[in-house]
Amino acid sequence: MTANNIPAMMDDMGRRAKAAAAALARSSVEQRAAALGAAAEAILAHRDDILAANARDMQAAEQKGLSGAMLDRLLLDEARVAAMAEGIRQIAALPNPLGRVTAEWERPNGLLIQRVAVPLGVIGIIYESRPNVTADAGALCLKSGNAVILRGGSESFHSSSAIRDCMIEGLQAAGLTGDAIQMVPTTDRAAVGYLLSGMPNYVDVIVPRGGKNLIARVQNDARVPVIGHLEGICHVYVHASADVDTARDIVLNAKMRRTGICGAAETLLIDAACLDTHWRPVADALIDAGCEIRGDARICALDERAVAASEADWDTEYLDAIIAARAVDGIDAAIAHIAAHGSGHTEAIIAEDQQAVEQFFHDLDSAILLHNASTQFADGGEFGMGAEIGIATGKIHARGPVGAEQLTSYKYVVRGSGQTRP
Amino acid sequence: MTANNIPAMMDDMGRRAKAAAAALARSSVEQRAAALGAAAEAILAHRDDILAANARDMQAAEQKGLSGAMLDRLLLDEARVAAMAEGIRQIAALPNPLGRVTAEWERPNGLLIQRVAVPLGVIGIIYESRPNVTADAGALCLKSGNAVILRGGSESFHSSSAIRDCMIEGLQAAGLTGDAIQMVPTTDRAAVGYLLSGMPNYVDVIVPRGGKNLIARVQNDARVPVIGHLEGICHVYVHASADVDTARDIVLNAKMRRTGICGAAETLLIDAACLDTHWRPVADALIDAGCEIRGDARICALDERAVAASEADWDTEYLDAIIAARAVDGIDAAIAHIAAHGSGHTEAIIAEDQQAVEQFFHDLDSAILLHNASTQFADGGEFGMGAEIGIATGKIHARGPVGAEQLTSYKYVVRGSGQTRP
Repeated sequence: MTANNIPAMMDDMGRRAKAAAAALARSSVEQRAAALGAAAEAILAHRDDILAANARDMQAAEQKGLSGAMLDRLLLDEARVAAMAEGIRQIAALPNPLGRVTAEWERPNGLLIQRVAVPLGVIGIIYESRPNVTADAGALCLKSGNAVILRGGSESFHSSSAIRDCMIEGLQAAGLTGDAIQMVPTTDRAAVGYLLSGMPNYVDVIVPRGGKNLIARVQNDARVPVIGHLEGICHVYVHASADVDTARDIVLNAKMRRTGICGAAETLLIDAACLDTHWRPVADALIDAGCEIRGDARICALDERAVAASEADWDTEYLDAIIAARAVDGIDAAIAHIAAHGSGHTEAIIAEDQQAVEQFFHDLDSAILLHNASTQFADGGEFGMGAEIGIATGKIHARGPVGAEQLTSYKYVVRGSGQTRP
Repeated sequence: MTANNIPAMMDDMGRRAKAAAAALARSSVEQRAAALGAAAEAILAHRDDILAANARDMQAAEQKGLSGAMLDRLLLDEARVAAMAEGIRQIAALPNPLGRVTAEWERPNGLLIQRVAVPLGVIGIIYESRPNVTADAGALCLKSGNAVILRGGSESFHSSSAIRDCMIEGLQAAGLTGDAIQMVPTTDRAAVGYLLSGMPNYVDVIVPRGGKNLIARVQNDARVPVIGHLEGICHVYVHASADVDTARDIVLNAKMRRTGICGAAETLLIDAACLDTHWRPVADALIDAGCEIRGDARICALDERAVAASEADWDTEYLDAIIAARAVDGIDAAIAHIAAHGSGHTEAIIAEDQQAVEQFFHDLDSAILLHNASTQFADGGEFGMGAEIGIATGKIHARGPVGAEQLTSYKYVVRGSGQTRP
């Protein structure tokens, strides 16, 4: 594959994806469910092939000196392969997102108008090293009747290809075209550029899934709509009215349950009015769990275990056992801090004062706002929406968890009896 | 204003728009309604100023030799000014699109999740010569809590500026910032380029409203999401089972009621099986109304009044008293023609056979599909949605009529009682 061939190759993929999307839009829900079930079967049946492909990727990654965290993301084992198949089965079991009548009304002239959910068309998904995204994203697109062009990280190329083969086996077993789930067959970065900007006639939307640099590149280069997933600089705000045990439990969970997910808390805001009563229990729990605290001047003055935060700390997604902590003078200051430093992902308020809660909910504009609950609930499964491609932080089309339902559009179907417009 | 100043000027507008959007998001529904009422008052009170500004635009347009249709679009008179004010009042009277709880459910762990409608933020609207769009679009954005940066056609610059002044008077009368409705204060095209690509930190979405060339430029150059409005190549398909009077009345209305709107029919498809019975009544009605028919070979063989269609006719939005007509061999052929040549706007089937109707509704993927009703119902007002910015033909975010409700996003509000994630 040379760079010169890329536009022709990508255009061909685009044409096939568009034809597959048209076929999928007309397929039955039973066919799509059968394809998902068969894909899950195929993943289990070809487990050894997938693990062998993954071993090739792992070997290359180790030679390239990838970090332990990167290697762990890349690694597949028997349990992870089984979990992938189970994930596809769970997606198959979700309600059919297509054909839902999401609104219905009758006009005075007798026209009956229905708004009906339809697929988006062709989705381009660009992701990084986790090979299981190939299965998750492929299955979510198939569930929602969309054709997909996948472009995974070069590190996971062989693993993803083996998984993609299983997805195609599933499609074909159900009489659907394998073109519904395609994967860019090269690790050449020019192919990503072409997917983003060169094929607006074939690609309806791009979903990037990965780190800050990937998202920034996609949002800058894309000539088609992007359902964006920015980083999660999530805040927990402890209001003066907070119950101290609730504050301690939620801050600890929001930060430390898993530090590497986008819904993990990165900044703790605490009312100066309750520092005396609430700081120690919260800070003790964090420090006992191995968390570093980067505090502002008031917190550092109060607690010698905190190190001094720099301005950059308020804008950092650590994804690690570190929390930035700042004392604020009431809810207006907390809201102003979040508006200035948040990424619009998820914020929580811990409070017993209901008026403060309503102000927090009204004045802040993040995808997810929680009261007395952990930010780590920012997850499609926890929302009861099933698997998701990510948590969208943009405001167009879908916001928050992006599952099968969010990968649909709608059309209006209007039933008349001869009406003409006066 | 020199081109060198444009980035700084536009960035300043963007900053002010973003601050205004934050203020609007926190404003009350009463304040927004008061601002709309006061803007309608201001338009009536400043009618003479608006007409004087319009006279300047008209004079320049005549000197530039603009066509009669263009001049008519640009022209304001007392009735049109009054209609503009009335249009704003109607928007003020619509239900509040913000704060609606569009979904609500409880999780087994007791978390109560609500999806609540919120503004999009800052909307850039790029439009052509009709100055009334300044009032309509400004009012729709205000209604939905969005700040807007308007960029109208250079021909209507003075008219639009005078109308914008009235909108600002309305905002200020209600204690809201005039920055909520800004207008690019130059006709320099570089400002459009910068609005599309230079200020993604300030602009959340672009809504183009105008002809094919404008839309193409916007979709090519924009670095922010676009709610696109392509041309309307709308089809009426007369199925063999159609009632002949219904077919005649609807085809005539769909084509000739108003030929210049995007929902006007451009192509007539008719089953070969009913040509003998249905063609003459339909064609007679069209020709009596002054419509030119461009037919395929079978239609030209049947009716000497039809002129021969070229391949280009199937892809042309005439916006005029011309219709392309083609005989098709059944519904599959009709659907294939529409899939190949339609613009995804609006299509109608005239049929008594309910199975054909369901196939038409299922297999086609246009924003609006109608049965036994005129394509000219493709209109926000006719849908009962009130004023609209246009009919979106893309699949992302909003499709079909884009009114105040479609100019919103949502956030999730989650009420807990101390839940942490296991």
